[in-house]
Amino acid sequence: MSLTKGLFVTFEGGEGAGKSTQMRLLADSLSARGYAVLTTREPGGSAGAEAVRHVLLSGAAESFGVRMEAILFAAARSDHVEQVIRPALGRRTIVLCDRFMDSSRVYQGITGNLEASFIETLERVAVNGVVPDLTIIFDLPAIVGLERARRRAADQGPDRFEKEQLETHEKRREAFLDIAETDPERCRVVDATRPPEVIAADVLDLVAALLPSEDAARASAAEVAT
Amino acid sequence: MSLTKGLFVTFEGGEGAGKSTQMRLLADSLSARGYAVLTTREPGGSAGAEAVRHVLLSGAAESFGVRMEAILFAAARSDHVEQVIRPALGRRTIVLCDRFMDSSRVYQGITGNLEASFIETLERVAVNGVVPDLTIIFDLPAIVGLERARRRAADQGPDRFEKEQLETHEKRREAFLDIAETDPERCRVVDATRPPEVIAADVLDLVAALLPSEDAARASAAEVAT
Repeated sequence: MSLTKGLFVTFEGGEGAGKSTQMRLLADSLSARGYAVLTTREPGGSAGAEAVRHVLLSGAAESFGVRMEAILFAAARSDHVEQVIRPALGRRTIVLCDRFMDSSRVYQGITGNLEASFIETLERVAVNGVVPDLTIIFDLPAIVGLERARRRAADQGPDRFEKEQLETHEKRREAFLDIAETDPERCRVVDATRPPEVIAADVLDLVAALLPSEDAARASAAEVAT
Repeated sequence: MSLTKGLFVTFEGGEGAGKSTQMRLLADSLSARGYAVLTTREPGGSAGAEAVRHVLLSGAAESFGVRMEAILFAAARSDHVEQVIRPALGRRTIVLCDRFMDSSRVYQGITGNLEASFIETLERVAVNGVVPDLTIIFDLPAIVGLERARRRAADQGPDRFEKEQLETHEKRREAFLDIAETDPERCRVVDATRPPEVIAADVLDLVAALLPSEDAARASAAEVAT
């Protein structure tokens, strides 16, 4: 199955919303249908970005202040875009990315208290024209997401992104919903409280709608068949 | 000697122009006159910025591409400005900085082939309003600077900034002179081929002219006395 151009889909939302699981399920569905799929994530996703990700997740960056942290995220994103995402789209691949620019808007902009204009400027610099064709926002109440994240943390140990409080998480949820409302062309909100397989069917429909019509028909048929 | 507000002076120019020596001489002169002086440098100058400097100077960043490198410089500068320069100016200190935003314009913008608009955007983000009161550009022919840098390198071993070629250095020299021409309010060009003590007297005059008039008179008097 080859596309006439690449397709760039980003997965956004709070912790515990099931983004990673859904991305994997979608990648499997699309691969099974013969599409070239690349899955990636932020922060990270390229050699340079992983180097920055390491600094960011270590917690060492917290002492650097929120502005430097936000610029470091932009440096990582720029590398990720130029080294990985743009070349893959150029090869007509479907690129699925776990977190992208909307996470910066929400995490650094809304709950990091940085001015929107500063975040927008960094976004423009980092993204350099590579804007998602579709952004799927996985929405669920903060308390549910935190519960899930906490259960997962019991196995893996918490990283710094999971030490935050309920109020902050709810604020982020609202911010993601605001983004969806402001940019309805690009964004779709998915109710992430439902069973994974139900969500996965919705996600596949959203993406299939962006594939060339013959492909869309084939994807739907395949979905019914399984 | 206390100022009514801080004074921010940056030292710019190619390799071997004697920026570091002149900065030290000026710091000594001003300290001897009772001023609070802070000397610092880029890339680096703060904990977060030094971490980034380490990555940048190691040469590892070369594989990341010029855009990411430029954004990393901006991250380092932001940290340096917010953690060191702005607080020092707030304490009415004279801040002397070896390389600042003009080096980014020249090294990343002119010889790094990045769009001026990209560099300007990053500059605005990183500087965040902290623009030098005075920028002294140490000018000399590229061949002279390279000779000096090469002699120094024999002792210390070359870093990646000193592997460049003559043509590039001459292009940078022109770029620094262009900046001075475009922004004559802020920039002064100093002929760096002259003996260090002659240059130092010029540099002190330039800075004394920006001190409150009574201070300027006192600085000049002291200068005559020595």
